[in-house]
Amino acid sequence: MFISIRKYSTEICGRLEKEDQCVQPCSEVSPPKWHLGHTTWFFEELILVKFLPGFTRFNEQYRVLFNSYYKAAGKHWIQAERGYLSRPTVSDILQWREYLDEKLVDFLKNSGSNADVDFLLEVGIQHEQQHQELLLMDIKFILGANPLLPTYTETPLPKVTAVAESWKDFNEGIYQVGHKGPEFSYDNESPHHKTYIYPFSLRENIVTNAEYLKFIEDDGYSKSQFWLSQGWDWVNANHVTCPLYWHKEWHKEWHKEHENWNEFTLHGLQSLDPNAPVTHISYFEANAFANWTGFRLPTEQESEVFLNKTCNENMPCDSSLFHPNRVDVNVNQVWFWTKSQYSSYPGYRTFQGMLEEYNGKFMCNQFVLKGGCVATPKHHYRHTYRNFYLPEQRWMFSGIRLAKDI
Amino acid sequence: MFISIRKYSTEICGRLEKEDQCVQPCSEVSPPKWHLGHTTWFFEELILVKFLPGFTRFNEQYRVLFNSYYKAAGKHWIQAERGYLSRPTVSDILQWREYLDEKLVDFLKNSGSNADVDFLLEVGIQHEQQHQELLLMDIKFILGANPLLPTYTETPLPKVTAVAESWKDFNEGIYQVGHKGPEFSYDNESPHHKTYIYPFSLRENIVTNAEYLKFIEDDGYSKSQFWLSQGWDWVNANHVTCPLYWHKEWHKEWHKEHENWNEFTLHGLQSLDPNAPVTHISYFEANAFANWTGFRLPTEQESEVFLNKTCNENMPCDSSLFHPNRVDVNVNQVWFWTKSQYSSYPGYRTFQGMLEEYNGKFMCNQFVLKGGCVATPKHHYRHTYRNFYLPEQRWMFSGIRLAKDI
Amino acid sequence: MFISIRKYSTEICGRLEKEDQCVQPCSEVSPPKWHLGHTTWFFEELILVKFLPGFTRFNEQYRVLFNSYYKAAGKHWIQAERGYLSRPTVSDILQWREYLDEKLVDFLKNSGSNADVDFLLEVGIQHEQQHQELLLMDIKFILGANPLLPTYTETPLPKVTAVAESWKDFNEGIYQVGHKGPEFSYDNESPHHKTYIYPFSLRENIVTNAEYLKFIEDDGYSKSQFWLSQGWDWVNANHVTCPLYWHKEWHKEWHKEHENWNEFTLHGLQSLDPNAPVTHISYFEANAFANWTGFRLPTEQESEVFLNKTCNENMPCDSSLFHPNRVDVNVNQVWFWTKSQYSSYPGYRTFQGMLEEYNGKFMCNQFVLKGGCVATPKHHYRHTYRNFYLPEQRWMFSGIRLAKDI
Amino acid sequence: MFISIRKYSTEICGRLEKEDQCVQPCSEVSPPKWHLGHTTWFFEELILVKFLPGFTRFNEQYRVLFNSYYKAAGKHWIQAERGYLSRPTVSDILQWREYLDEKLVDFLKNSGSNADVDFLLEVGIQHEQQHQELLLMDIKFILGANPLLPTYTETPLPKVTAVAESWKDFNEGIYQVGHKGPEFSYDNESPHHKTYIYPFSLRENIVTNAEYLKFIEDDGYSKSQFWLSQGWDWVNANHVTCPLYWHKEWHKEWHKEHENWNEFTLHGLQSLDPNAPVTHISYFEANAFANWTGFRLPTEQESEVFLNKTCNENMPCDSSLFHPNRVDVNVNQVWFWTKSQYSSYPGYRTFQGMLEEYNGKFMCNQFVLKGGCVATPKHHYRHTYRNFYLPEQRWMFSGIRLAKDI
Repeated sequence: MFISIRKYSTEICGRLEKEDQCVQPCSEVSPPKWHLGHTTWFFEELILVKFLPGFTRFNEQYRVLFNSYYKAAGKHWIQAERGYLSRPTVSDILQWREYLDEKLVDFLKNSGSNADVDFLLEVGIQHEQQHQELLLMDIKFILGANPLLPTYTETPLPKVTAVAESWKDFNEGIYQVGHKGPEFSYDNESPHHKTYIYPFSLRENIVTNAEYLKFIEDDGYSKSQFWLSQGWDWVNANHVTCPLYWHKEWHKEWHKEHENWNEFTLHGLQSLDPNAPVTHISYFEANAFANWTGFRLPTEQESEVFLNKTCNENMPCDSSLFHPNRVDVNVNQVWFWTKSQYSSYPGYRTFQGMLEEYNGKFMCNQFVLKGGCVATPKHHYRHTYRNFYLPEQRWMFSGIRLAKDI
Repeated sequence: MFISIRKYSTEICGRLEKEDQCVQPCSEVSPPKWHLGHTTWFFEELILVKFLPGFTRFNEQYRVLFNSYYKAAGKHWIQAERGYLSRPTVSDILQWREYLDEKLVDFLKNSGSNADVDFLLEVGIQHEQQHQELLLMDIKFILGANPLLPTYTETPLPKVTAVAESWKDFNEGIYQVGHKGPEFSYDNESPHHKTYIYPFSLRENIVTNAEYLKFIEDDGYSKSQFWLSQGWDWVNANHVTCPLYWHKEWHKEWHKEHENWNEFTLHGLQSLDPNAPVTHISYFEANAFANWTGFRLPTEQESEVFLNKTCNENMPCDSSLFHPNRVDVNVNQVWFWTKSQYSSYPGYRTFQGMLEEYNGKFMCNQFVLKGGCVATPKHHYRHTYRNFYLPEQRWMFSGIRLAKDI
Repeated sequence: MFISIRKYSTEICGRLEKEDQCVQPCSEVSPPKWHLGHTTWFFEELILVKFLPGFTRFNEQYRVLFNSYYKAAGKHWIQAERGYLSRPTVSDILQWREYLDEKLVDFLKNSGSNADVDFLLEVGIQHEQQHQELLLMDIKFILGANPLLPTYTETPLPKVTAVAESWKDFNEGIYQVGHKGPEFSYDNESPHHKTYIYPFSLRENIVTNAEYLKFIEDDGYSKSQFWLSQGWDWVNANHVTCPLYWHKEWHKEWHKEHENWNEFTLHGLQSLDPNAPVTHISYFEANAFANWTGFRLPTEQESEVFLNKTCNENMPCDSSLFHPNRVDVNVNQVWFWTKSQYSSYPGYRTFQGMLEEYNGKFMCNQFVLKGGCVATPKHHYRHTYRNFYLPEQRWMFSGIRLAKDI
Repeated sequence: MFISIRKYSTEICGRLEKEDQCVQPCSEVSPPKWHLGHTTWFFEELILVKFLPGFTRFNEQYRVLFNSYYKAAGKHWIQAERGYLSRPTVSDILQWREYLDEKLVDFLKNSGSNADVDFLLEVGIQHEQQHQELLLMDIKFILGANPLLPTYTETPLPKVTAVAESWKDFNEGIYQVGHKGPEFSYDNESPHHKTYIYPFSLRENIVTNAEYLKFIEDDGYSKSQFWLSQGWDWVNANHVTCPLYWHKEWHKEWHKEHENWNEFTLHGLQSLDPNAPVTHISYFEANAFANWTGFRLPTEQESEVFLNKTCNENMPCDSSLFHPNRVDVNVNQVWFWTKSQYSSYPGYRTFQGMLEEYNGKFMCNQFVLKGGCVATPKHHYRHTYRNFYLPEQRWMFSGIRLAKDI
């Protein structure tokens, strides 16, 4: 499991040029080679440094360069300046990965059973999987910020089949949400707990590009009444008029083949598919769109109850494609925003040690997304999973699911 | 009621020089004369323009200058630039207040009963009371930002009497929170609704300066493990080391009489009273302090349940003083932060018309405070009241009440 | 002399409301009351503190609050935050002025002749005169930033009489520039020195609004070829399309009487007078305009040679008006930009003591203006005077005089 | 000549990894691959597009991506975002270089003699040489910003031999400066013209690290009296305490071998050589240092007169080293700052066409440097050469030569 997960990270980067792996077009997007290094650092610090007597770090300096934000692990390089570092090179980092993998596999083979190590190994694997989704997000941003519009994969993207509108109703009452059972989950998914929910309905088919386009065509981005106060400021300060990666007449002289709306995808620039799920949407946009429809966004509790009833946990990522291409009931190929700000569950306890900083310290000014997406690695997703982003962020594969009171 | 509330606003400003009423030391603090104008604008736009045939605005331009942020009411002057406007003068605005008050009283006398007008009059009065608390906050900030440290009132500030620590326990179960009944409340306090709460305990005595000082002396501001990630960035970017208005050796050569920690109050610079409630605390600080104690902040639901059991709704402001001076059980002289991010209740509906913008559009990145404070006007407070501020703000009279799971 | 100069400063502010004297709409514009204090501070620090035994400052704190930037005089309040200070009030400062004036006059009467004191008194008077011009500039900016467009003076502004174009030629050779003789001058005007000048011609009539309007109508603000690289960035970053104080359809609904281009003046909003000198022009604009005409800006050496030949030193300010209203040869009612960056003359020596900081430390990134303006106080101006501003600044009465090689 | 100059650019980059050629650690430093592209673009736009019928650009998009700032050549990519572009790759750009070189050589062989083309070819070569110096500056900044401190060349750096202090005196009178003769020069070096200079002396030996260290040890960076007002703000805002690339205890745990002051060079981190010229100095620092010594910086006219008398034009770059290592009279291995702000000579005319933007539009807020440096390519330097930078910039090889009035 460890070996195959580790290999998948290098495969993701293997489709890139070395140059693609170094640049950082905005502070929240990291150079791909940094992800390859950081996930390696994570195993090194969390397991080998602690549990393997006599272990020597591959390079002492990497300890600082590839620490993301863990204060308990010492100093760390500034996030916004990861793209300033041309060294270590991609080759240097790949050598480090080989070194670490070999040492870790040896260690696991030779050491006896140890529950602490088993847990940290599981966390390391889950962490690497999270970064695999981030890698795809960051690669998309890097390629999409380039007017040459390089293509990540040549695999053609099929047209999406439309589905009929349908809603799923739920009764009022006490429900239980949160993780239960022996399988791995992050600390923020626990404890399993009761919550009182009023009668509601969620739309089974996710919002499509065609629906979102109507909002644009109705001048939704110019009507303050649909927007949160901070969202309205964000729209105006950044001159936002459409989802990230949507283009109309952008570098028209160079990319003549696409008229009207186009969307940049990891499969290259595509004519906008009206039936596909709208994606790369901020919370501000999702909320404004929901207001415009007269419906609302679901809470995270409603969302989890809905997911438990309707969706298969293995579905979101069951695809060889790197772009959402289904809107069927029971499939989530984009994370959907909830109206719930990210906070702790009653009785919440953080992981211990360095991992205390994994989730709890971000419980401020973020909104929860549920459901997984096409870029989420297989076996990484759970319905109790709580993804979270700032309300203005939208480089993740984020979409909209509508809710209403009934 | 209308007349006495209106008069109290001018009384608050009457203790100031004209110069004090013009300046804006930071964008969230408005010049006092602006508040006098804005509350007048509110009645003008909401009632007279709509309901009094032939009504002429005192000055057409004030419609823009004193609109705070209501997009439905047309253009508005930029908030951060209110302090750039020397005109209209304080006298101009006082004349406008007289004009409006006379017209409105005449209108109310001469028009028949009208439920819409009654409601808007009530909103206008509540709105003016909110701005009375804001006036005291802003005046304190304006005077406190001045190295001359002018005094707002010469009334002496008595020493605070210490109280013993005590906790109040609550059982697990379904509770009801939110406004119920015919009395006025804001839209965000409704509907009255059920919520599931786990067993918890709240500390009856509010956190004091002495307690907070121990956190400082334990280097709490330098220990990242207690802070939210954004809070840690805020502390470091702004070099925060103590609550707003606390000073140690500040302009020592000018204010020699106070050694050690001092606190600027509306009663002038005071030696820090260890028994007084700590106040002018950001959410980031409240959360870090709570983490340091090993307890936590309460949720807003827990807080409302607690307030209903223990506190008199008339208590917070029952004082002729402008600084919190009691920590007894049953009294709230500082708003206390909850860990709940400000969001809508299930089934929430906004007010209509221009008032749609009163509360709903701010449900993002703010935290709820409960309990009222010494600056809250009498008859304005309710236990269902939901005050809300950004996690870094601290110029309101905000303090800390501790909670724990039991 | 001292008494009458001091009195003129308070007269300038006497036309204002107290509120006008407190605000600071941008960091380079100071509240008028601050100028009243600062010029008082200057005499206090420079003369009484040094030469009057037993002198007690009116208020120790004012020493910091009214120091502009003199590091040798200790700490100073931040320039950009002068508008945050409501205290000391206007009355407080006027009392301080009376106190200082009385003490200084007594001191001068009672002390014997002292060349150092005589020199410092002269500097203090010149300094106060400089601030009188700054006061008018700042007052104009404060009133002009207000959409109510308050009028500083009700005196009507006569229409300007047009003059014919004429050029004055000068031969190649060694010329002498800089201050000579026993009268007062600033250190930066010395020494009187030789300079080699190539044949040139200067236009006697200053550039008018009508001429500048043609540049605007030819889309001069949209044609990069006329602009310095930094100027082009400035135009685009600030969306500059016309001189400061020009307005077209600004708050049209409130100021209906003026169609087409208008200009805000200390005499109120006026229909743009085509024959008046264009004023409130940045170096970037002056340079772009000159390039557009095919001529160029003069050097400061050429300008001084020209002024010596053609203009009366008493002329610029010989007016009861607060706006340039003549374009005749021999009159300068606006400072004109030279293409010379502000630097030291060969053999330059700064004043000593605190006054070392008066001029020399600003010799970087500023351009020299020559000629004086309508706001320059009588008896303050000399042809050797070197005014200097950053190339983007334009709240001074700055205009354009054209030059050419011959 | 063309072929060998072009080859040298790729040789400079040939010592780097691909990753080193993509990153942009600050907006004024460009990725090395961008320089390789931009110099190619320059020949393409200036010569082949204009003069070779039927010429097809290698890639239409590169026209925008590699235009630096020439408005006359159409749109250009934002300078600060060059490091966001991973594509075109280094290989892509090297292919483009081959394509261009082949096409241009063919064109030159086959077309008849053409004075316009000859001139543009000369400009293109000079331009590429300028970028070769920029490449070394940018490479140094990229490697120096990396805590791993990669070495550009393994060639060892010899110790510098000290020389005795000596001054060269010059009489008062009319001198001639500026370019004369048929050889190539930039427009800003012309015309050759007379200037009046007062008696002065220039120090022949350039300022050393040891001398500059004394300024630091005398707390020069903390004494406002030596600094220009803007310089003092710069020092404080950026916490500047030493020249760029000087390090004391920087990542001490990783680079233990060097105690006390070290200097990062293209030859790796070195113990600071006291006898070497101080380099990577801003104008603010050069000016403050000169003030501290009691001398001053020279004007550019004095400097040119001095250079004509004492220095060989072929000297600055006569070295196989990438760091200044001589302080002899007659050698300039660092550019030295003059106190002259960059302005046009009397009778200045810009180049025509796109080249109009080469020099003239930067004549604002920059200071002139004279003398050449160790990174200046052979055959590129002239004593009339006017290098210019903003007063805060210091990533070029800039040093200090002292002057005095006599």
